[in-house]
Amino acid sequence: MPLKSLNDLLEHELKDIYSAERQITRALPKLAKAATDPKLRAAFEKHLEETKGQIEQLDQVFEMIGAKPGRKVCLAMQGLVAEGEELLEKEAEKADPTTFDAALIASAQRVEHYEIAAYGTARTYAEHCGFKDAARILQRILDQESKTNEALTKLAESGINQQAEQAGSGASA
Amino acid sequence: MPLKSLNDLLEHELKDIYSAERQITRALPKLAKAATDPKLRAAFEKHLEETKGQIEQLDQVFEMIGAKPGRKVCLAMQGLVAEGEELLEKEAEKADPTTFDAALIASAQRVEHYEIAAYGTARTYAEHCGFKDAARILQRILDQESKTNEALTKLAESGINQQAEQAGSGASA
Repeated sequence: MPLKSLNDLLEHELKDIYSAERQITRALPKLAKAATDPKLRAAFEKHLEETKGQIEQLDQVFEMIGAKPGRKVCLAMQGLVAEGEELLEKEAEKADPTTFDAALIASAQRVEHYEIAAYGTARTYAEHCGFKDAARILQRILDQESKTNEALTKLAESGINQQAEQAGSGASA
Repeated sequence: MPLKSLNDLLEHELKDIYSAERQITRALPKLAKAATDPKLRAAFEKHLEETKGQIEQLDQVFEMIGAKPGRKVCLAMQGLVAEGEELLEKEAEKADPTTFDAALIASAQRVEHYEIAAYGTARTYAEHCGFKDAARILQRILDQESKTNEALTKLAESGINQQAEQAGSGASA
């Protein structure tokens, strides 16, 4: 489908986001499993459930604009997930557990920021194209992604970063 | 280098960012060349110069923390760049020029958001680890990335999105 208008671009963006979210549902259980802090694990598990709900909402958005998710693969999310997997494969075993939790948060926040950019763009396009209900759903998901990102920042700053810092000074095992 | 403390993680994050910025310096000229709107082209060219300056500042940060950039490759930025290249290779020729400009902005904003997440994390780690001057530099670059992102939003909303919308309604050629 050539990009002849903002309408085409909206569809293009939504297909990208759809692929991204599906990749995230496969990555989050691995992050949850690798997390040591129970609150961090719970945050990943909560976001997995949210992501599944977001995919259902995206199905509604596709219906609203008269399109289908298709087979587009989000290459950027492939890269983001690959970076997370590299961390799990190369670093998990030999890392200090709290430092590794901080690294997991950093990786997840990069993913959240990708989604914040993508949903912000798609919401704006939907508004321009007159798809008010679709724009409202995209804004709701965007708010959810922003909240997840803030929750991860709070978790990092509520003890994980401090503990990781102390790990280096020999103050903890 | 195993991640035994926040100090190690700071170094790990900075190596990732360094690789990301270097990849961006190779991608931005392609985006600038593909842009139709002269203001958008100028924005990409301006950010290329900024990025080169950021790499020099990162060299300073590495010196401050007693580390070197190394050979780490940022896999996430590889994916983000691959997504941009897919757009250039598959869509550029057959797309409406203004719609394609909007797509370039969307792609660049995803890159900016990656950087915003990455610099925010590195700045926080640097503060925790007591590298005040390094944290200050990282905050300064973070502010620059945020401004670039805002400038791209303004460009999109100052005419490009509207023109792309009209391209679909037949109101323009």
